[in-house]
Amino acid sequence: MAVKLYGAPMSTCTARVLICLHELQAEFEFVPVDTFAREQKQPSFLSKNPFGLVPVLEDGELTLFESRAIIAYLLEKYKDRRYDLTREGNPKEAALVRVWMEVEAHHYNPAIRPILFETFVASHFGKSPNQSVIDSKRDESNQVLDVYEARLSTTKYLAGDFYSLADLYHLPCTRHLMKSPHADLILSRPHVKAWWEDVSSRPAYQKVAINMDFDAV
Amino acid sequence: MAVKLYGAPMSTCTARVLICLHELQAEFEFVPVDTFAREQKQPSFLSKNPFGLVPVLEDGELTLFESRAIIAYLLEKYKDRRYDLTREGNPKEAALVRVWMEVEAHHYNPAIRPILFETFVASHFGKSPNQSVIDSKRDESNQVLDVYEARLSTTKYLAGDFYSLADLYHLPCTRHLMKSPHADLILSRPHVKAWWEDVSSRPAYQKVAINMDFDAV
Repeated sequence: MAVKLYGAPMSTCTARVLICLHELQAEFEFVPVDTFAREQKQPSFLSKNPFGLVPVLEDGELTLFESRAIIAYLLEKYKDRRYDLTREGNPKEAALVRVWMEVEAHHYNPAIRPILFETFVASHFGKSPNQSVIDSKRDESNQVLDVYEARLSTTKYLAGDFYSLADLYHLPCTRHLMKSPHADLILSRPHVKAWWEDVSSRPAYQKVAINMDFDAV
Repeated sequence: MAVKLYGAPMSTCTARVLICLHELQAEFEFVPVDTFAREQKQPSFLSKNPFGLVPVLEDGELTLFESRAIIAYLLEKYKDRRYDLTREGNPKEAALVRVWMEVEAHHYNPAIRPILFETFVASHFGKSPNQSVIDSKRDESNQVLDVYEARLSTTKYLAGDFYSLADLYHLPCTRHLMKSPHADLILSRPHVKAWWEDVSSRPAYQKVAINMDFDAV
């Protein structure tokens, strides 16, 4: 039985799981959730994820939420067929994959996501973009991306000279960033730009990215 | 050769790793970093972690940062001797451990930490606590902890009826919260309170918690 993924195509956390499913060439059923209509806050969905967020994965009787936890489960479930995204056979490489996965979660994502929210989402709730949030998060993003530029001048990918889950984790947010007026954050840094051009060329990413546009308000 | 951990005793991210080291009964050398004197922002430390944060782990030639990545590495390194914190032999249990580890990182920690910063840290930088931050983060914490109360009314620990890394991840922030004027967030919820009394009774936690006080300003 194929796993079932509930999510929204433009949601970065949904896209993170979808890209992984395509990398694994796993069969799955996708169930769209209309997050702008707040379907994820209805009781039927809250019974799957009490925090009322997408994505949710169902595999038989097992229900999981949190995109990064879902991905860990999928990697284990499909471990026979996977492209080696975690380098578990090499403790040092595996450790560096985890470091840069955590950097995405605790530095990159918190700096970039508020810019995306103000640019693409605020208008859906009848709000104007908050320029002071954008300015402060651009400053934070610049600091974070300076570290990335230094890192990517020494290794081809974030964890080393191999594509890994650490790179994959960055794809959904960066996809939206590149469609925003703030793509200069990436394009102004030669090594980050080259990394983006490389990682965004992967078919698993492209299959997902094509459906990530926000509808115009 | 014992691993070397650089950190600050009151830092929640440092404490997360220290508790894990004690659960594993691993030998280690602790190197204190004076974060209030900004030692972590000096070039010698930035060469270990370019984001200028504690903790950092050194194991021979390998240097790692990000507490959760360090812990994953330690669990692998000491897998023979560890209390089974991740339930990897049972894919369903392991998946739920990961779900609640991610909930800590993306819901609990972002709601609680700003309250701790305003209460314990702001004064070290000559600032008064920002009451509007405290109020808004208390609201957020109440919403998050309502989910915890419901969860812990069905299972003894967060991932199931077994103590796991998901519980351990919560200990450092909750230790500070319980010493703050906001302990009611925990104490007002019977199942969360009972869980806290249980998980905070573990010797590995108590060895670390005793050294976590902030110096008075």
